Amino acid sequence: MKLCEMTKEELVAFKNEVKKEYEAFKSRGLSLDMSRGKPAANQLDTAMGLLDAVNSTSCLSDGNGVDCRNYGGLDGIGEAKKLFSQMIGVSEKEVIVAGNSSLNLMYDTIMKNMFFGVNEEATPWGKQGNLKWLCPCPGYDRHFAITEGFGIEMINIPMNSDGPDMDMIEKLVSEDASIKGIWCVPMYSNPTGITFSDEVVKRFASLQPKASDFRIFWDNAYCVHHLSDDRDYLLPILEEAKKHGNEDMIYIFGSTSKVSFAGAGVAVMGASEKNIAYYKKLMNIQTIGYDKINMLRHVRFFKDFEGLEAQMKTLAELINPKFETVLDALEKELSPLGIGSWHKPKGGYFISFMAPKGCAKRIAQLCKEGGVVLTGAGATYPYGKDPDDKNLRIAPTYPPVEELKLAAELFCISTKLAAVEKLLEE
Amino acid sequence: MKLCEMTKEELVAFKNEVKKEYEAFKSRGLSLDMSRGKPAANQLDTAMGLLDAVNSTSCLSDGNGVDCRNYGGLDGIGEAKKLFSQMIGVSEKEVIVAGNSSLNLMYDTIMKNMFFGVNEEATPWGKQGNLKWLCPCPGYDRHFAITEGFGIEMINIPMNSDGPDMDMIEKLVSEDASIKGIWCVPMYSNPTGITFSDEVVKRFASLQPKASDFRIFWDNAYCVHHLSDDRDYLLPILEEAKKHGNEDMIYIFGSTSKVSFAGAGVAVMGASEKNIAYYKKLMNIQTIGYDKINMLRHVRFFKDFEGLEAQMKTLAELINPKFETVLDALEKELSPLGIGSWHKPKGGYFISFMAPKGCAKRIAQLCKEGGVVLTGAGATYPYGKDPDDKNLRIAPTYPPVEELKLAAELFCISTKLAAVEKLLEE
Repeated sequence: MKLCEMTKEELVAFKNEVKKEYEAFKSRGLSLDMSRGKPAANQLDTAMGLLDAVNSTSCLSDGNGVDCRNYGGLDGIGEAKKLFSQMIGVSEKEVIVAGNSSLNLMYDTIMKNMFFGVNEEATPWGKQGNLKWLCPCPGYDRHFAITEGFGIEMINIPMNSDGPDMDMIEKLVSEDASIKGIWCVPMYSNPTGITFSDEVVKRFASLQPKASDFRIFWDNAYCVHHLSDDRDYLLPILEEAKKHGNEDMIYIFGSTSKVSFAGAGVAVMGASEKNIAYYKKLMNIQTIGYDKINMLRHVRFFKDFEGLEAQMKTLAELINPKFETVLDALEKELSPLGIGSWHKPKGGYFISFMAPKGCAKRIAQLCKEGGVVLTGAGATYPYGKDPDDKNLRIAPTYPPVEELKLAAELFCISTKLAAVEKLLEE
Repeated sequence: MKLCEMTKEELVAFKNEVKKEYEAFKSRGLSLDMSRGKPAANQLDTAMGLLDAVNSTSCLSDGNGVDCRNYGGLDGIGEAKKLFSQMIGVSEKEVIVAGNSSLNLMYDTIMKNMFFGVNEEATPWGKQGNLKWLCPCPGYDRHFAITEGFGIEMINIPMNSDGPDMDMIEKLVSEDASIKGIWCVPMYSNPTGITFSDEVVKRFASLQPKASDFRIFWDNAYCVHHLSDDRDYLLPILEEAKKHGNEDMIYIFGSTSKVSFAGAGVAVMGASEKNIAYYKKLMNIQTIGYDKINMLRHVRFFKDFEGLEAQMKTLAELINPKFETVLDALEKELSPLGIGSWHKPKGGYFISFMAPKGCAKRIAQLCKEGGVVLTGAGATYPYGKDPDDKNLRIAPTYPPVEELKLAAELFCISTKLAAVEKLLEE
């Protein structure tokens, strides 16, 4: 029976029953952290060979004879450009292979645009008064933290099952020149798990923004992170943008943080040749270059893009059962009661749960008191403010399956309790 | 006989003789690069064990049980903080261990001060109109490139044998609040090779700048780079500054770029606890953290500070003969003629040569045409403008000794030729 079909008496009885289950759970003294999209130890174990890919007997020259132990090579070694340009769907001339953090690359790109402008001719963003940014949400909290940090006003854009609301985006960017950018996680979106449809990508690629220095931050963090062979496909946006002369409007980012090691991988930026030349010029003041030995290590470990895809299949076998565990629990426990909604993602790192309105904070609180820390309710919205207090991001990868089962159980109990509390309030 | 004591006839005869030597040299078709302070391959060979310090069978947890393969630990792992805080002379609470480039840390620090200010209360540098910066010179071209890149007006400060002209610095910073910083390489200075005296360090530590957001960028790049046991000592500036309540005025930088691998090492920033807390807060928006596996690799390879010092002794044995080669040539070829002046450094990476006035560019040109590329004349001054066209930076580490001998020979011949040409012009 669905919760909404229950009489008041039935709701009270249901509440008392769930409350008992919750208290029983609480007394078990769990302590689980599901707050961040962190790989589990057994995922990291699959990449240990990376640490042997280069050792003291290795030749440390890249394919062009460059000694990777020495200075030089601002934008990465040739073979790393080849591999990672393929990963993010650009050509070798449209890529910079950098340090260990794509988030840092995004931050740096905004910082540079703030201070120096998007190209030689442009007025720096920082000299144009109040700036605005489009934020499809639910979205990635660390994206929002960057734009908030820079004092840029963030505008919520609803996310649909095929991508953000393009009507709204097209209207806003065509009217308001103070809108300088948009955050996108186009594939297996963080947290909703959806992939932008071909139509959405095409509409992004053909945007006609009022501000000529409007930029799309295309964080393709999960481009190879399929959960099985039944995968999504994303249209390569840079190619689409070229058809409209819009190639300078796109910055693509990616990394191996969830392919090899989180925080000890390789980050990459894809952009038009004009943009690459411009950022290389600015980067040349910032650094002598990034860690080429770690690039070499990655290239020799994966060998080629097929090798990288094989690694992702190995990881999928470890991750997929965790997604199934959570999804099964939601399906079994919440569907019959008609509580909440969620998407079954084909890749990525998250399950996005839409609770009944006004329940997300309460669910997170109940989970926390029960011993499971979730990503804070609201974190998936700019300024941490979920207008409907509905969204929760579930990160299933880190805990072992056995713990995850318990966590999912607690999550469902907490959700039931919050939902019935809410109904009884009304 | 000194050149200045020669008659015109003697000078002409000398010139013809040197010219012959130069042409003979040129015909040998040399092709050597002495333009950058790059380690030689045999230096890099001494650090190959670093690549075995961590492998697929290693425990990848740090001393606090943190899995270095995963996210977390914004400011570096504990054992890296311990080792590298010792290297730059601060406490473990006064250090951030970061990525592969100390230059990037300096750039980021300026960028953050520009955009966010030096602390929570301060007005961002970028909102204070025209800014100025003090540049002891000859100095490091990449420092100057950063401040030039940010559009900061650079003021030349003469370098003496015990450090920069402190009278001038004290006067300028006490009078002009638009002066926001100074570049210093306090030990084995780039390029002059001198180390700041205790008195100079104390005067820096007790500066009373008009601008409360004036900052000293103390790039201690060569803090462990002694050429022999007959070494210089540098007073720890942060401790000195505390005596005057000036600890927030100091940022210290260092790296292992010339200890382990150039561009694949570890960079470090030392500062007051207040500054560290502030920059960590800003960094928390920029990145999830730096490469902890590379930190672990370094800590396990060096074991402790004594291990790091032992590595520097091994390197000194390779580098010192190269410095001797160049210094011997200068002494033998140029001293008797009274041409130019230079300092015999006890560490670092460079020999700074002061040519007769107006001769540096000509010497660099003659060297280049003869097959040896030097750091461009003028590069050691802000905007690439050496007011007297005197200074040349010689980087002896990269070529093998045999090639270096030839290069030093060509350098001396070119210097003689440029000097006699100049005298005959006058």
